[in-house]
Amino acid sequence: METGLFSYPTPFTPPTTEEDELSSLRLARSRRVGATTFHRLLKDHGSAAAALAALPAIARSAGSSDYLPCPIAQAQAELAAGRRAGAQLLLPGGPGYPADLLAFADAPPILWAMGKVDLLARPRVAVVGARNASSLGQRMAQKLAEEMGRAGFAVVSGLARGIDAAAHRAALPTGTIAVMAGGIDVIYPTENTELARRIAAEGLRLAELPPGTEPQARHFPQRNRIIAALSRATLVVEAAAGSGSLLTARMALDYGREVMAVPGHPMDARASGCNMLIRDGATLIRGAEDVLEAMGMAPMPRAERTAAPTQTPAPPPKPALAGLRAKLLSLLGPAPTPEETVIRDLGIDAATLSRELVGLEIEGEVTRHPGGFLSRG
Amino acid sequence: METGLFSYPTPFTPPTTEEDELSSLRLARSRRVGATTFHRLLKDHGSAAAALAALPAIARSAGSSDYLPCPIAQAQAELAAGRRAGAQLLLPGGPGYPADLLAFADAPPILWAMGKVDLLARPRVAVVGARNASSLGQRMAQKLAEEMGRAGFAVVSGLARGIDAAAHRAALPTGTIAVMAGGIDVIYPTENTELARRIAAEGLRLAELPPGTEPQARHFPQRNRIIAALSRATLVVEAAAGSGSLLTARMALDYGREVMAVPGHPMDARASGCNMLIRDGATLIRGAEDVLEAMGMAPMPRAERTAAPTQTPAPPPKPALAGLRAKLLSLLGPAPTPEETVIRDLGIDAATLSRELVGLEIEGEVTRHPGGFLSRG
Repeated sequence: METGLFSYPTPFTPPTTEEDELSSLRLARSRRVGATTFHRLLKDHGSAAAALAALPAIARSAGSSDYLPCPIAQAQAELAAGRRAGAQLLLPGGPGYPADLLAFADAPPILWAMGKVDLLARPRVAVVGARNASSLGQRMAQKLAEEMGRAGFAVVSGLARGIDAAAHRAALPTGTIAVMAGGIDVIYPTENTELARRIAAEGLRLAELPPGTEPQARHFPQRNRIIAALSRATLVVEAAAGSGSLLTARMALDYGREVMAVPGHPMDARASGCNMLIRDGATLIRGAEDVLEAMGMAPMPRAERTAAPTQTPAPPPKPALAGLRAKLLSLLGPAPTPEETVIRDLGIDAATLSRELVGLEIEGEVTRHPGGFLSRG
Repeated sequence: METGLFSYPTPFTPPTTEEDELSSLRLARSRRVGATTFHRLLKDHGSAAAALAALPAIARSAGSSDYLPCPIAQAQAELAAGRRAGAQLLLPGGPGYPADLLAFADAPPILWAMGKVDLLARPRVAVVGARNASSLGQRMAQKLAEEMGRAGFAVVSGLARGIDAAAHRAALPTGTIAVMAGGIDVIYPTENTELARRIAAEGLRLAELPPGTEPQARHFPQRNRIIAALSRATLVVEAAAGSGSLLTARMALDYGREVMAVPGHPMDARASGCNMLIRDGATLIRGAEDVLEAMGMAPMPRAERTAAPTQTPAPPPKPALAGLRAKLLSLLGPAPTPEETVIRDLGIDAATLSRELVGLEIEGEVTRHPGGFLSRG
């Protein structure tokens, strides 16, 4: 379906948008125009059309006299192929395109989208990890995805085997976004064909490359950067050292996004990447509660934080007793109280407290506990 | 074996030391004189004998008219029992007593020692954890203890089942220290009797309480504080939430000692305490290399740190080329280099680099990679 430059195959699309789409697509597909250069050219020249017009001159001044931008026909063919596949084009600054992506110099110049584009309006979190995941890892991915979905997040992943697929599947009811390494209509791996179909129907598929593109090794890091950029946090579940999930995590860090990882035993190779990330500063997560807590979205979720002796509220001072000793005793109860708390509450220094305690301990009024805790009796 | 106050059952011990031992022991065993009070009294009164003499008056001024310090005969009996058991008494400031313990207000007032006291002169590290450890956990404890032993550390633990026993056993050839909750001659649990015998022969056993004391629940936290205080770092291998190992770790933190923990899968209850510690700031360790690295005693030990593209050294600038563009190209090689490095090396700002890169990328001289990396070609 090749048409002329100003033909409008979709009568409901205003011509200016159609022109923008075509020019943006041509600019994005022009040889050696990467994502960062795309945005730079757009900024320098005001529009994709103007940048396109300037390209040959820029190339000439750089010594390439034979440079040609992407032909109109090629861009028209891509537009047609995308629409045949049932996808729509999202352009930076245009409807549907996530505005927060534009904070990154290498935000995708175009995104093909298939499914519920409004999922992009939600807060997003990535759940990624090993393809050869253990069943424990898949269960963890599923639990994280379900719970983050229930907490209102769209769950982003890469449609790979293992962790990715488990996360997508678990988040189908609440909303999931698959970012594809190849074309929007090329399902890889083929075993995820049915899952991909359901994601297009109930969730959202995104692809940066032209429809029909078979994914190649070099496409995966490019795709991973989109997962990282889209997601407020990247949660890594089971990842071996040197794996693609770690690259996604590294990009998330470069983007200033949060990285969180599920730990595992050091003798389990599938945990090595996650443990490494935690050593390097990623947040250790045991479940969605930890994720939400790290995002400041939930109170301390677990009762079982590192055990500190519980502290009973100090009883009101007894008026019948007087002096430092009486105040000190009034502050203490049967449950151990940290010495620092007592020092602060009495407004005295540690030496004064220590002097007072010698008598009180011998008297049997106060008991000291390891770690600097005090109690009555 | 009760003897008079100034009899000297061991003729090789100078009388002053014998007097010190007796007075220190009486002070330490006097009712309501905890460790902190012991040191405070010693400091205030100059010697254990002087503090003992002052005790009744202190008690009277605190309202206890019937206070009696520990009787001489009781202390003599303890000295005799300890010697019968083959143990020696270590006193704060005296030979063998680890001087670094005295940094803590509640350092043990006395320590019974059985075995190679000179092990206390080594740097020490604690390996502690669950009694119902998994075989994986025990293997990890064994590996850590062996490797820390080889690195010159005395391995401290609590002679409990599981992790403790595995650590002691693995460190027997290099040197291990068991801190006992009860008396130096009371082995708990009994299944560790043979191990305890070997530790006394090849390593060192320590106990704060009098010989013959059966350990009770309240003794364990007191014992744990000694493990924490003795050890430059406390390594926790498998610990459930709320376990004694976590209390040891907490005390180590209170003492300003390092705490390190072996992670595990969140669905493994035996890992919950360790994961919690790591969330709370403990160093995640995968083996002894990580421990040594955290102590600043080893270079980056593993090749598999979070993957960053390897960077080849920049080739020397080519004199034939001139200008910013030439310098930029001379800095880049086939392996991706971070943009920040280029910006720093060229002394330019990001905008200038970005402008230059537009041309170079279109020209095909430079390739951008996700995450802000650049390479030639």
